[in-house]
Amino acid sequence: MITLRKPKIVIVGAGYGGLMTTVRLQKLLGVNEAEIVLINKNDYHYETTWLHEASAGTLHHDKVRYDIRNVVDRSKVEFIQDTVVEINKEEKKVILENDQVNYDYLVIALGGEPETFGIKGLKEYAFGITNVNSSRQLREHIEYQFATYNMEEEKNDNRLSIVVGGAGFTGIEFLGELTNRIPELCQEYDVDFQKVKITCVEAAPTVLPGFDPELVSYAVSQLERRGVEFLIGTAIKEATPEGIFVGKGDEEPYEIKAGTVVWAAGVRGNAIIEKSGFEAMRGRVKVQPDLRVPGFDDVFIIGDSSLVINEEINRPYPPTAQIAMQQGEVVAKNITALVRNKAELENFTFDNKGTVCSLGEDDAIGVVFGKKVTGSKAAFMKKVVDNRALYMIGGTSLVLKKGKLNFF
Amino acid sequence: MITLRKPKIVIVGAGYGGLMTTVRLQKLLGVNEAEIVLINKNDYHYETTWLHEASAGTLHHDKVRYDIRNVVDRSKVEFIQDTVVEINKEEKKVILENDQVNYDYLVIALGGEPETFGIKGLKEYAFGITNVNSSRQLREHIEYQFATYNMEEEKNDNRLSIVVGGAGFTGIEFLGELTNRIPELCQEYDVDFQKVKITCVEAAPTVLPGFDPELVSYAVSQLERRGVEFLIGTAIKEATPEGIFVGKGDEEPYEIKAGTVVWAAGVRGNAIIEKSGFEAMRGRVKVQPDLRVPGFDDVFIIGDSSLVINEEINRPYPPTAQIAMQQGEVVAKNITALVRNKAELENFTFDNKGTVCSLGEDDAIGVVFGKKVTGSKAAFMKKVVDNRALYMIGGTSLVLKKGKLNFF
Repeated sequence: MITLRKPKIVIVGAGYGGLMTTVRLQKLLGVNEAEIVLINKNDYHYETTWLHEASAGTLHHDKVRYDIRNVVDRSKVEFIQDTVVEINKEEKKVILENDQVNYDYLVIALGGEPETFGIKGLKEYAFGITNVNSSRQLREHIEYQFATYNMEEEKNDNRLSIVVGGAGFTGIEFLGELTNRIPELCQEYDVDFQKVKITCVEAAPTVLPGFDPELVSYAVSQLERRGVEFLIGTAIKEATPEGIFVGKGDEEPYEIKAGTVVWAAGVRGNAIIEKSGFEAMRGRVKVQPDLRVPGFDDVFIIGDSSLVINEEINRPYPPTAQIAMQQGEVVAKNITALVRNKAELENFTFDNKGTVCSLGEDDAIGVVFGKKVTGSKAAFMKKVVDNRALYMIGGTSLVLKKGKLNFF
Repeated sequence: MITLRKPKIVIVGAGYGGLMTTVRLQKLLGVNEAEIVLINKNDYHYETTWLHEASAGTLHHDKVRYDIRNVVDRSKVEFIQDTVVEINKEEKKVILENDQVNYDYLVIALGGEPETFGIKGLKEYAFGITNVNSSRQLREHIEYQFATYNMEEEKNDNRLSIVVGGAGFTGIEFLGELTNRIPELCQEYDVDFQKVKITCVEAAPTVLPGFDPELVSYAVSQLERRGVEFLIGTAIKEATPEGIFVGKGDEEPYEIKAGTVVWAAGVRGNAIIEKSGFEAMRGRVKVQPDLRVPGFDDVFIIGDSSLVINEEINRPYPPTAQIAMQQGEVVAKNITALVRNKAELENFTFDNKGTVCSLGEDDAIGVVFGKKVTGSKAAFMKKVVDNRALYMIGGTSLVLKKGKLNFF
């Protein structure tokens, strides 16, 4: 008697890409067709694109996460809470901290990591907007600085100085929330608003590289009006316990004292990628059009650790939630095809539905369906985008539970 | 023509004693009888006896303070927000940071200060439950320790270790709130409750010295049940950035690692007292029965900087809100008598209406009207006591605004 073993699909990471893959697979495949295993460090998924709010303290971190069991069908998917240590692609198994799991098909959706470009002191002294843990630590750190200010006989204004490294998407969205939050913090801790100093340092020659210049200029003027000072074309040379050293080009670096340094520039692929011996650039693997790893027909990589070229400009697409979720949809279809022994796999093409960058409460900039929007109209669109991500993964019930429904 | 100058009454400090003096004086004296000036560092009064709640984070610090203008009649009292630097009792003036003010009658109600008994490192590394500033700093510090715990690859359990120095009133009340707060913090920051360690170190041979032993034993067992470890008859020898060193008697001190050290033992009089040349013991002046300073018929001292002997046991009364408010009532009468040129001043006698020590939500111990109470009955009485302080100073409207009305 021959027992036909069901193929085992393992998804590591329950971010946008991994969770989308899982919920699509549980719809596409019958219980008898395959075994599906989802592995994640936490028992919750978090909205990476909302972390700037949790970090600034304008949205509680419990609002940016939800229990994975809310969206995963436990009759079809086994969920394992554990941390991936390494992938043994030759023996087709995932090594976990407390276990190891074999796979027939593997989806690596482990998310990215901050890229500090070797800048001295950043790892030690800068805070990140990376996950729930780092965001609430950053929020608490800023609150502690404000709480301590009035405790010191000799007032140290540097406690109220916040430097944001990076004027990309995350940096700008964080500044939008932060400038909304500062007046609240000033009231909460009896601090004079005039003493607070917010500086954004960006090495590139512009804020929000790649964004429409008209929208960029709107964003900059809005944030400047709320007290942000921009240092553009300026690189952080070093971070210290007292602040940062910056400089333009070859000029002598000078110091900006700051009680809080936030590093919001640069994402690289997950360290597990290189550790497991995949060929990668900054931890990102250039995947095949069907999202498999060249040479490994049973391994898919999606999200921040995958690299897909935008043929129009011959440069990689920046890692976003939107692209990760679209990849998840394609991977689910392709694995279903493989399980059903269909030879034809679908090629991934990114369908850019637009981008909205929040500038805090009721303000944003964006390009949606090819049209530029600013202000409250754009802020409205941002909420639509945020809710859409919830809907795509968890349907209406998740939108009602976790959605941004305060539209007006 | 002779202009009769109105006598000028200056009250420094808007704590329980100073504020009670002020509101009684504004009732007793007509606008034409005297000029009344109240000087305080902040534009708000805070409930010192509620600070343990703000420090633990179980009550927001804005709930433990109210605007002085809510209770002071501005047509009768001039309020100056400034910090007292020194009192020149020979020239009868109060030196402020930004001004100086002459007086005919002075009421010193500046409150106490933490007494660290020269223990090394306490001033630098221990947090205090002293005022609004220190309480919210302590709250934020603990939150930051919890928020940081999951950020570190090598988990440092000492971040979750909290040492409270002192098992007197403040220490015990803080422990009561803290043990209520810890489960919330564990949930908020995804921390295992079992990892949290709370230690109370007391040099005296008992918890709550002076309290009824039966009540003390109730309090200890309740707090132990919630995870507090008591080290009684044990002295803190030194505080460091990593924790404290403790020892019994002459035994070799040993270290208790702790991310948070709270010093809640010992109050001394205000430093201004000694700086201004008043004869004092630990900053407290042994006042006359009419609450005036011996040798200075125009200066009254009340509250934490005054020393009144309890004749029954021939020891000073511990400084409490209750005694400060009763002193304020007598001082207001005595100053009214002086302004009206009446020779006879009233002598202060403390009328102990009882003491209730909170053990957190819905638990307390106390002696009220001579009867011992514990549990929710005592917790109810504690709220009555708290509301009574509000009523005495600001009447019904203040109770409605700031009172603890969640009785059941």
